Amino acid sequence: MPLFSRFKHCSNCGSPVDYRVPPDDNRERAMCPACGMVHYQNPLNVVGTLPVWEADGRVLLCRRAIEPRHGLWTLPAGFMELGETTAEGALRETQEEAGADIAMGPLFTLLNVVRVGQVHLFYLATLRSLQFDPGPESLEAQLFAEAEIPWEEIAFQTTRETLRCFFDDRRAGRGFGPHAIDIA
Amino acid sequence: MPLFSRFKHCSNCGSPVDYRVPPDDNRERAMCPACGMVHYQNPLNVVGTLPVWEADGRVLLCRRAIEPRHGLWTLPAGFMELGETTAEGALRETQEEAGADIAMGPLFTLLNVVRVGQVHLFYLATLRSLQFDPGPESLEAQLFAEAEIPWEEIAFQTTRETLRCFFDDRRAGRGFGPHAIDIA
Repeated sequence: MPLFSRFKHCSNCGSPVDYRVPPDDNRERAMCPACGMVHYQNPLNVVGTLPVWEADGRVLLCRRAIEPRHGLWTLPAGFMELGETTAEGALRETQEEAGADIAMGPLFTLLNVVRVGQVHLFYLATLRSLQFDPGPESLEAQLFAEAEIPWEEIAFQTTRETLRCFFDDRRAGRGFGPHAIDIA
Repeated sequence: MPLFSRFKHCSNCGSPVDYRVPPDDNRERAMCPACGMVHYQNPLNVVGTLPVWEADGRVLLCRRAIEPRHGLWTLPAGFMELGETTAEGALRETQEEAGADIAMGPLFTLLNVVRVGQVHLFYLATLRSLQFDPGPESLEAQLFAEAEIPWEEIAFQTTRETLRCFFDDRRAGRGFGPHAIDIA
């Protein structure tokens, strides 16, 4: 999983880097005194879905088989990769973590998690079958009605907020999102 | 500006890296045989605004003073930084590039530019004054009515698509976005 570890050496030539403000910039960056390369570090996107079984309105959660938050429940999501769109990444993560067959819907939540340098994007999705095949990152994949959601065992605040927005929108009978949320 | 240069050396210890698929992963990553660090590379976010002067509906564009696309027109936008939300980054870029005083509105376009590993997010914004103060990255900042847009001199396709969506939405008298667009 990508984490922000401070650059100590240049990824181009291996020399130790200095932290300085490059010309025409206004922030310190890791700069290589040997080859001149500037190393930027920027926020990452986490992309996922909120899969719904439309016949009865239940939603799909996965129980995590990995750290962090082993054993807790989450919407299928993970780091966006090079070579894919946000929606393609969300679909891939849903297949990898839940083995679920879904039709992608629109963007539903955009959550900024500044503390860890992440932007989480969740798409609505409809399940096309009730067969799941959780991958190695999930202990199980299971459908939950609103009253059955294990709120005390949700792994991440971005999952909790996305579920909350979905049930609020549905109860209010209004359109579904999109919602922009900043996580403190 | 962040660009994806392939890791040759470990940013932690400086040793030459190997490209291998880590355990429990399914893609090649730059791995350090000396210290064990795995180096991930992921898409980056570009955040910006579409600033509107509500009295007459004109929109603000900046003429680029830097490469790429020096001399061409763009909406104010740039790479999202650590420590800010997507909306905060869009506001900052608008201040840096146009020196414009704006009130932020909702997310308007989400554009995937897979070829360069970028996600562009544009927010609607309303101008609070007609005083601009273009920064070093802009030659000038200027308001344009729809009929005045220099379509042949727009720097980036993401700006062109965002403007097109805005004028289409306005002409149709419908709500403004959000729009999801994949750039080939």
